[in-house]
Amino acid sequence: MSLLEKNAALRSLVEQYGASLAQAEGLPLDSICEALNAGTMVLLGNPAHANVRPILVGQPASIKINANLGTSPLCNCPTTEAKKLQAAIESGAHTVMDLSIAGDLDALRQNMLRQCPLPVGTVPMYSAAQVLLDADKPIEELNPDALFDEIAKQARQGVDFMTVHCGLTQRGAAWAAEGGRVLGIVSRGGALLARWMRENNKENPLLEQFDRLLDIAREYNVTLSLGDGLRPGAGVDAGDAAQWEEVITLGRLAQHALAAGVQCMIEGPGHVALNQVEAQIKGIKKLTHGAPLYVLGPLTVDTAAGYDHIAGAIGGALGVVAGVDFLCYLTPAEHLTLPDEADVRAGVMASRVAAQAGEVALGTQRALAREAAMNKARMALDWEGMKQAALDPAMVEKRREAHKKEDVCAMCGKFCAVKMLRKEN
Amino acid sequence: MSLLEKNAALRSLVEQYGASLAQAEGLPLDSICEALNAGTMVLLGNPAHANVRPILVGQPASIKINANLGTSPLCNCPTTEAKKLQAAIESGAHTVMDLSIAGDLDALRQNMLRQCPLPVGTVPMYSAAQVLLDADKPIEELNPDALFDEIAKQARQGVDFMTVHCGLTQRGAAWAAEGGRVLGIVSRGGALLARWMRENNKENPLLEQFDRLLDIAREYNVTLSLGDGLRPGAGVDAGDAAQWEEVITLGRLAQHALAAGVQCMIEGPGHVALNQVEAQIKGIKKLTHGAPLYVLGPLTVDTAAGYDHIAGAIGGALGVVAGVDFLCYLTPAEHLTLPDEADVRAGVMASRVAAQAGEVALGTQRALAREAAMNKARMALDWEGMKQAALDPAMVEKRREAHKKEDVCAMCGKFCAVKMLRKEN
Repeated sequence: MSLLEKNAALRSLVEQYGASLAQAEGLPLDSICEALNAGTMVLLGNPAHANVRPILVGQPASIKINANLGTSPLCNCPTTEAKKLQAAIESGAHTVMDLSIAGDLDALRQNMLRQCPLPVGTVPMYSAAQVLLDADKPIEELNPDALFDEIAKQARQGVDFMTVHCGLTQRGAAWAAEGGRVLGIVSRGGALLARWMRENNKENPLLEQFDRLLDIAREYNVTLSLGDGLRPGAGVDAGDAAQWEEVITLGRLAQHALAAGVQCMIEGPGHVALNQVEAQIKGIKKLTHGAPLYVLGPLTVDTAAGYDHIAGAIGGALGVVAGVDFLCYLTPAEHLTLPDEADVRAGVMASRVAAQAGEVALGTQRALAREAAMNKARMALDWEGMKQAALDPAMVEKRREAHKKEDVCAMCGKFCAVKMLRKEN
Repeated sequence: MSLLEKNAALRSLVEQYGASLAQAEGLPLDSICEALNAGTMVLLGNPAHANVRPILVGQPASIKINANLGTSPLCNCPTTEAKKLQAAIESGAHTVMDLSIAGDLDALRQNMLRQCPLPVGTVPMYSAAQVLLDADKPIEELNPDALFDEIAKQARQGVDFMTVHCGLTQRGAAWAAEGGRVLGIVSRGGALLARWMRENNKENPLLEQFDRLLDIAREYNVTLSLGDGLRPGAGVDAGDAAQWEEVITLGRLAQHALAAGVQCMIEGPGHVALNQVEAQIKGIKKLTHGAPLYVLGPLTVDTAAGYDHIAGAIGGALGVVAGVDFLCYLTPAEHLTLPDEADVRAGVMASRVAAQAGEVALGTQRALAREAAMNKARMALDWEGMKQAALDPAMVEKRREAHKKEDVCAMCGKFCAVKMLRKEN
C-alpha cells in the first residue's frame, strides 16, 4: 500500500485541492502523487485546521518560506503576535510556526489557527516544557505521556506540521554536549530533550515511542518535521559526528514513517560556512532519501548579529541550488531578541530573495519568467511593470513615491543609461 | 624597472605607510611590494588627498567595501551628502565614491576630500557630461580634451581612484546595444561613451588616448578603476560577447598600465545568476592577469528591487570565494532612487556580511578569529563579548537595550538552550 492509500486525511486533501495545486505549481497531478508516495514531497494541511490552504513542499514544487512567530517570556503580547502574523502573510510567507513559550499557549495557538489560512507549525515540546518551567520545576520531571498528550491535542486543534526532535539519541546528545563543540546544543527543543535524557539516563521518548507519534500524525495528516536538535550553532561545529548521528537516525525514521503512511520533512542546519553548504545539503538529502529539507539559514556567518537575515539569505540561496525545499526565515532579531512586525517582514523578504536567487540558478520557469518581466519593464522604463514583477511591489511603490511622475529613477535622472541610448533622443 | 620604481608617488606612500599596512593586514611588507609590482594588489591613496589613510586592495589583504555617495538631479542636498559620508565611515566602509551628478560638483568633491580620511573615488565622465546635459546639449558634443582636463583636475584635487571606461570599444558598444541583450547598456558612464561613439562614429577617446590618462594617473598615484561599461544589467545578459570583449580589452590595458607604472583595478559585474558567479569571476581574473577585482554585487536576482543589498550580498559572498577583492555596496534604494543615510548603513553592512561569509569560507585568519570570539562569548552568555565580536556592535547594543540586564536573550528567556545544559542548573 502506498502512503496515499494509508493516509486517508492526506488522500482527502489531494482529492479536494489536487487540481488547483497542480495548476499553481505547474506540475501534473500524477507526478505530485508519485512524489508524495515517494516521500520526496509533502502536502502540508491538517483537515482539522478550518480554511487551511494546503501547500506542497519539495522540489520541483516552488521553494516555500516559513516565518517563525510566537511569544517569549520577555516579549509576550497577543496584539503584537496578531500583527506579526498579518505581516508574515502580507509579505508572502507560505507557512508560519507558532513558537510561543509564554502566555496562554493554547489560546495563542488556537487564535493563530483561526486567523491563519497558511499551514501552521509548532514545537509541542515547548508547551509540555512550559508547564514545568513556569512552575520552576526542572525539565527532567517531564512525563513523556504529557508530551504525547500535548501532541495529540495540538493535532486535534488543527496544527499542520510539528517539529519533533526524534533523531536525538543519548549518544548524539552526549557527543554534542561534551565532545568538543564550541557551542554544544543550540536548539531549544534539542536542549530540553538532551537534559531530560541526561538527568533521567533514559533514551529519547520521541524516538523510543515513534510509532505512538505516527498514529497521531496519520489520523490528522500532521506532517512531522523531524527536528535537528543537534544542528550546529557555530560554523566550526557543522559536520561533526553528533550532527551526522542525528541525520542518520532521521533518515531511518523518515523511511519508517513513510511506510506507516505519515508525511515527514527533515530539518537542517544551522550555522554552516559558505563552502560547506553544498556538501551539508547533499549529504543530508542523501541520508534522508530525498525527503523535503527544511533549513534554518544556513547561516554562513556567526558574527552577523542584527543582520542574520542576510547571512541566512546567502546560505539559503546556495542551499536551494543544492536541494533545499523549504526555507525557515531568519530575522534581524535572531540571536538578540524576539522579532517584531518589521523584523518579520524583513525576514520573509530576505528568504524570498534567497529563494528567487536559488530558483533562477536552477532555471525554474516561474522564476525566470519573473526576471524576464522585470527586465522588459526596465528596458521600457515601465514603472508599473517593474512594480508588478518585483518580489515586493509595495516597496517599489513606497520608494518611488516622491518621484513617481518621473519616467526615470531618482538615482540617475537625466543620466539614465537606458534613455541615453534611445535613438530618438 | 618595477611599478614601484616607476611610480614615485606610490613609492612615497609605501615608505610612509608600509609598516602599518603590513601590520594591519598581517602580511610581510615584502610580499605587499611584490603584489603591488605584480599588479595583483593596489594601494589606494593620492598624496594630494590630505590626511588620506591609504588602503590595500587585493587578496590576501582583507576584502574591502566601497560605498557610493553623491547627488542626483532629483535628490541634491549637500547636508544629506555629509550625513551619508558619516554613515559610510561609521558603518565600516573602506572607501567611498562621489558619484554626484547634480549641483556644484567641484565643491561637493572637494568637500568630501576634506572630510573623508578614506580613499575617495569618482567617475570623471559625470562632471564632463554634466556641463553639457545641464545646458540641454547632447553628450556627443563632448570634446575629449575637456574629459582629460577634468581627469587631471580631479587628480590634482586628490581623488584616489577613478572609474574610467577605457575598455569600451565601438564594436563592444554596438554588440551590447544592438546584439540581443535584454537590457543593453546599464552603466551610466558606459552609456554616455557609447552614445558619443555612435553619434560621432569615433573610437573611445579613453582607449585611444590611454597613455595620456596614464601620465596623469602616475603623477598622483591615481589608481585607475577600469570600468565595466558593458556589465550585464540582467542576469540573462551576463557572459555575452559584448561583456567579454570589454574584459579582454581591460586585461590588455591593465598590463600596459602596469608596465607604465600605473596601478589598476578591474570593475566587474553586475547582474549575474548565482550559478554563473564563479565562472564570471574566475574568467575575469584570468583575463585581467589577477588584477584586483572590484564588483557591484554581483546581483543574483533581477526582481529584488528594494532588497538589492541582499541580492548583492549573495553574489558578493560567492564572488569573494571565487577571487573578488573589493565589494561595491548596493543599497535597498538601488534601481529605485538615491540612497539616504539609512540605506548607506544598510548597504555597507550587507557588504560586510558578504565579505565575512566569503572570508570565513576562504579560511582567512582574521575572519575565523572574529567568529571564534563570537562563539566563545555565546557559549558564556557574555553579551559584552558578543557585542565586541559582532560586525556591528552598535546594533547589538540597540537590540539588547530593552533587556540588557538579562543574561539570556529576549527570544528564549528561560528556554535558553545554552543555559538548559549547564551542569549547575
